[in-house]
Amino acid sequence: MKKITFFTLAVLAMPLPIQAAIARDATTPKAETAATQEKVFNAQSFMLDNGMQVVVVENNRVPVITHMVWYRAGAADEPRGKSGIAHFLEHLMFKGQEHEKLGSLEPGEFSRIVRSLGGQDNAFTSQDFTAYYQTIASEHLERVMTMEAGRMRGINVPEKDFEAEKLVIQEERRQRTDNNPRAQMNEQIRDVLFTNHPYAIPVIGWMHEVFDLKWTDAHAFYDTYYAPNNAILIVSGDVKAQDVLEIAKRTYGLMKPTEIPERKRTTSPPFIAQTKVTLHHDTIKEPGFMRIYRAPSFRQDKKASLALQVLEDILGGGPTSRLYKSLVVDQKIATNASFSYSGTSWDDGTIGITATPAPGHSLDEVEEAIEEQLRVLIRDGITDEELKDSITRMQAEAIFARDSISGPAMIIGYSLVTGSTLDDIETWPSQIEAITKRDINLVTQKYINPDEPFHLPPVTGILLPAEQQAAEHNEKVK
Amino acid sequence: MKKITFFTLAVLAMPLPIQAAIARDATTPKAETAATQEKVFNAQSFMLDNGMQVVVVENNRVPVITHMVWYRAGAADEPRGKSGIAHFLEHLMFKGQEHEKLGSLEPGEFSRIVRSLGGQDNAFTSQDFTAYYQTIASEHLERVMTMEAGRMRGINVPEKDFEAEKLVIQEERRQRTDNNPRAQMNEQIRDVLFTNHPYAIPVIGWMHEVFDLKWTDAHAFYDTYYAPNNAILIVSGDVKAQDVLEIAKRTYGLMKPTEIPERKRTTSPPFIAQTKVTLHHDTIKEPGFMRIYRAPSFRQDKKASLALQVLEDILGGGPTSRLYKSLVVDQKIATNASFSYSGTSWDDGTIGITATPAPGHSLDEVEEAIEEQLRVLIRDGITDEELKDSITRMQAEAIFARDSISGPAMIIGYSLVTGSTLDDIETWPSQIEAITKRDINLVTQKYINPDEPFHLPPVTGILLPAEQQAAEHNEKVK
Repeated sequence: MKKITFFTLAVLAMPLPIQAAIARDATTPKAETAATQEKVFNAQSFMLDNGMQVVVVENNRVPVITHMVWYRAGAADEPRGKSGIAHFLEHLMFKGQEHEKLGSLEPGEFSRIVRSLGGQDNAFTSQDFTAYYQTIASEHLERVMTMEAGRMRGINVPEKDFEAEKLVIQEERRQRTDNNPRAQMNEQIRDVLFTNHPYAIPVIGWMHEVFDLKWTDAHAFYDTYYAPNNAILIVSGDVKAQDVLEIAKRTYGLMKPTEIPERKRTTSPPFIAQTKVTLHHDTIKEPGFMRIYRAPSFRQDKKASLALQVLEDILGGGPTSRLYKSLVVDQKIATNASFSYSGTSWDDGTIGITATPAPGHSLDEVEEAIEEQLRVLIRDGITDEELKDSITRMQAEAIFARDSISGPAMIIGYSLVTGSTLDDIETWPSQIEAITKRDINLVTQKYINPDEPFHLPPVTGILLPAEQQAAEHNEKVK
Repeated sequence: MKKITFFTLAVLAMPLPIQAAIARDATTPKAETAATQEKVFNAQSFMLDNGMQVVVVENNRVPVITHMVWYRAGAADEPRGKSGIAHFLEHLMFKGQEHEKLGSLEPGEFSRIVRSLGGQDNAFTSQDFTAYYQTIASEHLERVMTMEAGRMRGINVPEKDFEAEKLVIQEERRQRTDNNPRAQMNEQIRDVLFTNHPYAIPVIGWMHEVFDLKWTDAHAFYDTYYAPNNAILIVSGDVKAQDVLEIAKRTYGLMKPTEIPERKRTTSPPFIAQTKVTLHHDTIKEPGFMRIYRAPSFRQDKKASLALQVLEDILGGGPTSRLYKSLVVDQKIATNASFSYSGTSWDDGTIGITATPAPGHSLDEVEEAIEEQLRVLIRDGITDEELKDSITRMQAEAIFARDSISGPAMIIGYSLVTGSTLDDIETWPSQIEAITKRDINLVTQKYINPDEPFHLPPVTGILLPAEQQAAEHNEKVK
């Protein structure tokens, strides 16, 4: 559970080298927060004839651009039984391409060229989308756009590379999930939380299903979803919007639109029982507590999502936030406590609470203390000062985001591809400012009240060292 | 969790009027159990040219027959998002039919005719199959076969009847599940237990998906799966096999075979965390404990399934069985305790343990006592006498089953349609006799050992009265 808000999310989601590269403005944010009616990014949006949206954020401070393409196709759009194919395809996109007018590349050549030009490139897959990006000197924009457009409908992966890449992905899964009890717990919690909904299935796929994936599965997914009318192009940095548009027409403009199937996902039944998942594992050194709730995404309920973003800052925003201050600083019963909300998804978002008991304190104590904090919050509400501080802090984040090269592309892409509008993004600071104590009390009561039936109950995860299990058994056997 | 064995299962699954009608032979079973090499039913099996299997069990004691058709298509074969369509179709099969040579029937006419001839008819749907049957005077066999064959590929349901029947099904779901916390708990446990497998979805369907079902969905399922080469015909009672075969040729023989899609179901990942589901409900008067494990079905592992059938009898077979005797009779900490195994499924079967704490005793106490019984069983094994008694009792059940009219059809159908062979059924008593203490110890250790990691962990369900929740809250708020 990383701490995530509407704006920090995109930055956190980026690979580390890019996060580190984000330029921070030396001017104090305070000076600018008054101007909340201004647009955050002043992004310009266009539409190519083939239905591809083009968004440009000009920032001429340094001669660098970030170029991203976002496809509205992620793991939750996969056919049943083919879990992992969206992510697998993301890997294959680097394994060779061929286009009559835009040229051909050998497997691995795409990234080699980007690096040889001093740039960075990568890609990532979520439940709702797959995105590809390069950050590079602005003079190379046309080069990367030509390459990226070339693989939109022309990947050309040798059969042997498919099987080799499968081994890479299986190893990735082993390292990230199978050898990581916390990740295993997260998978199992999501499985329970998202009953009958594809968010129950991990983005990387179930190992046994990945094992059975075929090249034809990847191609079927590619042919269905990789098309200009299912993609968003975002370029931020040292460019002129008109230049981007001209190059986009010469490259992406060559691609024919296709018929994209309507996004029809199965939905969850109204389960009413609460679930606790317990995992003993020999790599766990100290017990851990986590609880995950379903909550509206920004697309589903803007007002609630904005209120949850503010609540996240108040309850979980660093060492001065309520949960950490109470459990870790004041009561000293936990060594860690977090509260996070993730609302940038097409379907339901999530709220996550995690904590680690301090030595000598039990999981029950920690759980009780967390619920007590929620009860106090529901009974007394937040204070005017908390609200004001959080809003100021969050608006400052938006200002910071404006000054990076890749940040705006990341934020705009993440938001547009999960159903926000450009206007939602540009006016986010004033929307946040409009959130009231009442709005926050409403979402607190509705989504995390420990004493009321939930619209959908949370799932609690308990991580325990294997020794503890052994000790319990010994006790039982006596 | 009903007590279920290979042989009693089918009888229990039948509607009550038919159960009551099963004739019991007055001769003592002991006299016959020696002859375990004999076939149980002496069933005769044929194959029509169109691929339909025909099984006949002759029993001329009373002039009555049971006529059943089993389709290899159940809820676990439904398209995703269309849950309940197999069961919905079962209802629609009574709503009118039309066939050039076999005649037409109005909605409701099928059952009216059966009743007017003094018979009974009904149908049922499981995860793996859908079955239709009539029990009627043997002189009417051709009549019911003609009607049943007529609806195999010729249903003709008025559009308005579809929507009317949807209301009936929704009400059925409300009564059986939504207003029944135990059934709700069972749904939620199965959802967790059968991660990524269609057994996670209830046969009756999720209410919101049933609401959206269309007539075209039912017809698509019908067209795909209702065909002679995907069906088994079983007739038991006062008939000659050759006569049945002749009539079957004149009726079912008219149906053309179709191409049946291969049964490809998604499978579960190897989850390792244990899960506890807690449900507070104001209709629950006393706390309840249930635990469900996955276990091999007969199709998957005959030896293990037979051993589990014997184990079920020893641990859960009535008031003298281990669990009941220990918890209810001796310790008096529970008012009820059961252990059941269900192995007649295409994919994984289940083991279920349930118990109700006696007043003054806690759920934890009961859970502990159950696990203690399992530990004792694993440490000391079963006794020779337990094994001998159980085998004798189970073989006697097979003898009893032989003497009913509908029982054999039910047992044979249930078994064949979930992947057993006729030989498996006919030689069941000698297979059971071959089970050893070692076989039973093996399955005990492998599937229900509380101190070892499970191949797939069980899911525990806790039912609590709503007042208890309120009381807990009050305590917390103090």
